[in-house]
Amino acid sequence: MVREGVDALMLTSHADARYFAGICFGPNEEPTSGSSGWLLLTADALALLVDSRYIIQAQREAPDAERIDYGSDAGAAIATWLHSHGARQLGLDAQQVRHAVWERIAEAAPGVELRSVRGWGTAVRAVKEASEIERIAAACAVADRALAGILDQIRPGATESALAWSLERAMREGGAEALAFDVAALAGGNAALPHGNPGTRELRAGEVILFDFGAQVAGYRSDMTRTLFVGEPSAEHAALYAAVHRGQAATIDLLRLAVEQGGPLPSGRACDVATRAAMAGAPRVYDHGLGHGIGLQTHESPSLSRGASDDALPSPTVFSVEPGIYVQDEIGIRIEDLVAVNTAGKSLTILTQFPAEPLIVG
Amino acid sequence: MVREGVDALMLTSHADARYFAGICFGPNEEPTSGSSGWLLLTADALALLVDSRYIIQAQREAPDAERIDYGSDAGAAIATWLHSHGARQLGLDAQQVRHAVWERIAEAAPGVELRSVRGWGTAVRAVKEASEIERIAAACAVADRALAGILDQIRPGATESALAWSLERAMREGGAEALAFDVAALAGGNAALPHGNPGTRELRAGEVILFDFGAQVAGYRSDMTRTLFVGEPSAEHAALYAAVHRGQAATIDLLRLAVEQGGPLPSGRACDVATRAAMAGAPRVYDHGLGHGIGLQTHESPSLSRGASDDALPSPTVFSVEPGIYVQDEIGIRIEDLVAVNTAGKSLTILTQFPAEPLIVG
Repeated sequence: MVREGVDALMLTSHADARYFAGICFGPNEEPTSGSSGWLLLTADALALLVDSRYIIQAQREAPDAERIDYGSDAGAAIATWLHSHGARQLGLDAQQVRHAVWERIAEAAPGVELRSVRGWGTAVRAVKEASEIERIAAACAVADRALAGILDQIRPGATESALAWSLERAMREGGAEALAFDVAALAGGNAALPHGNPGTRELRAGEVILFDFGAQVAGYRSDMTRTLFVGEPSAEHAALYAAVHRGQAATIDLLRLAVEQGGPLPSGRACDVATRAAMAGAPRVYDHGLGHGIGLQTHESPSLSRGASDDALPSPTVFSVEPGIYVQDEIGIRIEDLVAVNTAGKSLTILTQFPAEPLIVG
Repeated sequence: MVREGVDALMLTSHADARYFAGICFGPNEEPTSGSSGWLLLTADALALLVDSRYIIQAQREAPDAERIDYGSDAGAAIATWLHSHGARQLGLDAQQVRHAVWERIAEAAPGVELRSVRGWGTAVRAVKEASEIERIAAACAVADRALAGILDQIRPGATESALAWSLERAMREGGAEALAFDVAALAGGNAALPHGNPGTRELRAGEVILFDFGAQVAGYRSDMTRTLFVGEPSAEHAALYAAVHRGQAATIDLLRLAVEQGGPLPSGRACDVATRAAMAGAPRVYDHGLGHGIGLQTHESPSLSRGASDDALPSPTVFSVEPGIYVQDEIGIRIEDLVAVNTAGKSLTILTQFPAEPLIVG
């Protein structure tokens, strides 16, 4: 807080509510929860906003947090709390907070300066405890087993949506309390759509099927992408796969070297540079990020990308490494794994254990 | 736009993107899509913001919309578009738009006045075409059948989470492309939590199980709540159920009378008054809303509640009627049905057809 020049903070994500106060919202509750779950912090106080729908749940799950029942005016309740704690500068994230909320707090608390503070909660959450990494690994194991369990269904004629549902069902019946995000199952040229939805498109021999999927276990999430060949690939497609795999290995090798030396880790930008260098000469290299942290949210700090920070990656932490190649209307290939790094413990672990080598099915 | 005093509008929900431009985002894509899917409208132009990840999808699904590839600065792209269309006042919803976005547009478009306009898209979408009501009815049918199909699993010893998953699976394998929202399956005293999550709690004889659930078919959603008795209820609990059922009937009767007369419909507030009057004398009557519109989103306009408008409800439209009674740590009872009303056609249809009469299972 001192670094940001504020004496109070407001955090509005449900992941922060769970991490800092212990209250667990359902995965799809964000749009309907209003201001419930917002946290107010000072150096020595923590309060949780809850409306009448969540009071009983908050008493059960966050018994130690002060609870603010904000009624119909969250802004006024926030202002009252800030005043009673003598706060003069409130940090909150202008990228997350709605304009009307910001304006209402400013109006109700004229003596408090509002200052946009980005990523305080996510920076704290980026550094993972062993118990958190265990839960991410458990979610990875559920996803690994789910894909292995549906391999025999991946053959010409199967539809994207049927395979997506099979994978979802295998995760949900195999230990996932929820999905980390909707399963992507994209065949052939559809795999070139970085955010396509599975449809009634049928698999054909000689093309790929790309699965991007993750499970949630005890609140923590996994994320993995595998691109499988349906029948023998052409030499050209096999070469594209090799380029993506090589690109991923470059970052993992760079990280392993740093870990063996006890740190510091490379920056998220340096990882992206290493991966792109290893893929030099390949066409249509990814223009999305190379990777992202993961935990209570699917996308967290740190970021690995062209535009990422030059600071060393934090440790211990978990993030994805997911380069890709996308040729419009023809093919998309992405390989994504989760990597846990710990410089103090000199360990690097690939949490996603389904083979990343080229796999021919169907 | 004239009524709101603006010559351009910005709509930011994915439901609006689908309704007005035809582009379909996945149900959980909202948090990761950035500004993609935002719409800009003037009296004679419509443009869709998309970043590089969505360009191919936008070309396929929204070929008629002008596409703005906004790169790294959506605010600047919006400002440029407004300038090229001579817009002087932009309406956008301060309750939806992030503070940083609002500030960035204000900075990039100094000649344009920003004015908060609430609910323009939802007001247009509240009035439903026959094809939309058909799809909501199809989603209701999927949910009806799903609950009927799992009745034999509802018995003492079954857990909330196992029943929630059975219901989800029955919907997903019975025609739902997605859930409308996470299934709530709450036993006994948990049913008094208006937004509880299903857990490992086992059903016991003599208590209730409350299911609140919905399916999505062709983009449109259903929403239904049923509270079932596990074994014979006490006289007291049966009386509570009767009170809730009576409260729901009061609003449906009021609507039916208005429809038979060719309208106008009562207001959302008048419905709430009628339901509460019919429940007079019952303890612990609901303090949530009585009902909400539904369509591409689970919660849309119109609203039926204590604080709702005194204007007549729109027509044709579809909304829920869902009174409840909640006795902390003991029991919760809610009955929710979707009602389609059409004053011009003099028709009122209950789209959710699973019986609302007290049902004893187990």
